[in-house]
Amino acid sequence: MAHLDLEKPLLERNDRLAAENKARLTAAGVFMVDLMASPGAGKTSTILATIDALRENYRIAVIEGDIASDVDSQTIKSKGIAAVQINTGGACHLESDMIARALGVLDLDALDLIIIENVGNLVCPTDFYLGEDAKVMILSVPEGDDKPLKYPGIFQISDAIILNKVDTAPVFDFDREAFLSSTRGLNPTAPVFEIAATTGQGVAIWTDWLAERVEKKRRALS
Amino acid sequence: MAHLDLEKPLLERNDRLAAENKARLTAAGVFMVDLMASPGAGKTSTILATIDALRENYRIAVIEGDIASDVDSQTIKSKGIAAVQINTGGACHLESDMIARALGVLDLDALDLIIIENVGNLVCPTDFYLGEDAKVMILSVPEGDDKPLKYPGIFQISDAIILNKVDTAPVFDFDREAFLSSTRGLNPTAPVFEIAATTGQGVAIWTDWLAERVEKKRRALS
Repeated sequence: MAHLDLEKPLLERNDRLAAENKARLTAAGVFMVDLMASPGAGKTSTILATIDALRENYRIAVIEGDIASDVDSQTIKSKGIAAVQINTGGACHLESDMIARALGVLDLDALDLIIIENVGNLVCPTDFYLGEDAKVMILSVPEGDDKPLKYPGIFQISDAIILNKVDTAPVFDFDREAFLSSTRGLNPTAPVFEIAATTGQGVAIWTDWLAERVEKKRRALS
Repeated sequence: MAHLDLEKPLLERNDRLAAENKARLTAAGVFMVDLMASPGAGKTSTILATIDALRENYRIAVIEGDIASDVDSQTIKSKGIAAVQINTGGACHLESDMIARALGVLDLDALDLIIIENVGNLVCPTDFYLGEDAKVMILSVPEGDDKPLKYPGIFQISDAIILNKVDTAPVFDFDREAFLSSTRGLNPTAPVFEIAATTGQGVAIWTDWLAERVEKKRRALS
């Protein structure tokens, strides 16, 4: 399709800038994770729970991607955590040049972990690497157990998969076994963390996984 | 941005084909509605409830847009309704040429209403007209009341807005007044239908609105 051909040079340029971002972060010993999900799956509340769990041991900043508004970065800042807002002005994903500018604003030597909240979308962010060490996706129970079948790409490229809002499972007709089985079929290696970000249920297993990787990247520097 | 410049010829071509689709539908007296929403907001269950309400008086077909899979079109077909599956193979929205091919498969003279289920996405479908008579978006309560602020484009261009899963409001921290107020600010004229597609709550007000428009288009022919 014409669309894909037009996008090829764009993706190549994006990948080049992503490699530059990654080199900057590695030089500073900073781990960067890209959180992707549909609108309303609980990206911001997962970030808040992650900050609560890790802020004692690690220095954290957040890059907030939104089409419009700074609702989320205000929420993060109110917790005393540095947050850079990126408004894409219509684009359905973040790109490496936007992240490069955000990294320019942050003091990388004073950080261990950067969490990117990508634009709410299960499709567009899939193709765009940003220089992150891990891509992590969140699906929430109310979205339904059939989403791996409908949006296979994002399940395939994620390094870890969070299933959020598991506390609402009784209200929704969510077939956990079907979800796990089709997720496994698409991505046999990524861990699946079943959490309820707002109550804290299951969050520690996810943050332990993340902390281990942050620690490893920081140690590689010294 | 480079991205937008590259997309301009694509959008112009899309709009030309959209006008051709609309002319075909007008010649046949068929009303076409484009349903847009995030993954899991309840597009398919809203379509099923709409079919139940209108099938006695109108001849209906469904065009199913998905990145992958034919889960939804199988569900529609099992109700005895014609369904055409479009797999976009990665693209985050439907385009007019895909709809033109789907219209070629359907017998337009034997139809009154075509419902398009767009790819689950609050961003990409916004820019692409398909030749539809109305664009209708669905937001579901679990997605949160702040979505109009974060995804203003889709709220602005919709001819009607459905708030689905209102039966789950007690479980979620959804501020109905805040949602209605920011929606009104973006789009003062579109009606907002508060429904629970799976229980039928509120559905009749939405289907009455739709039936009125289907009727009008059919009558314009005779």
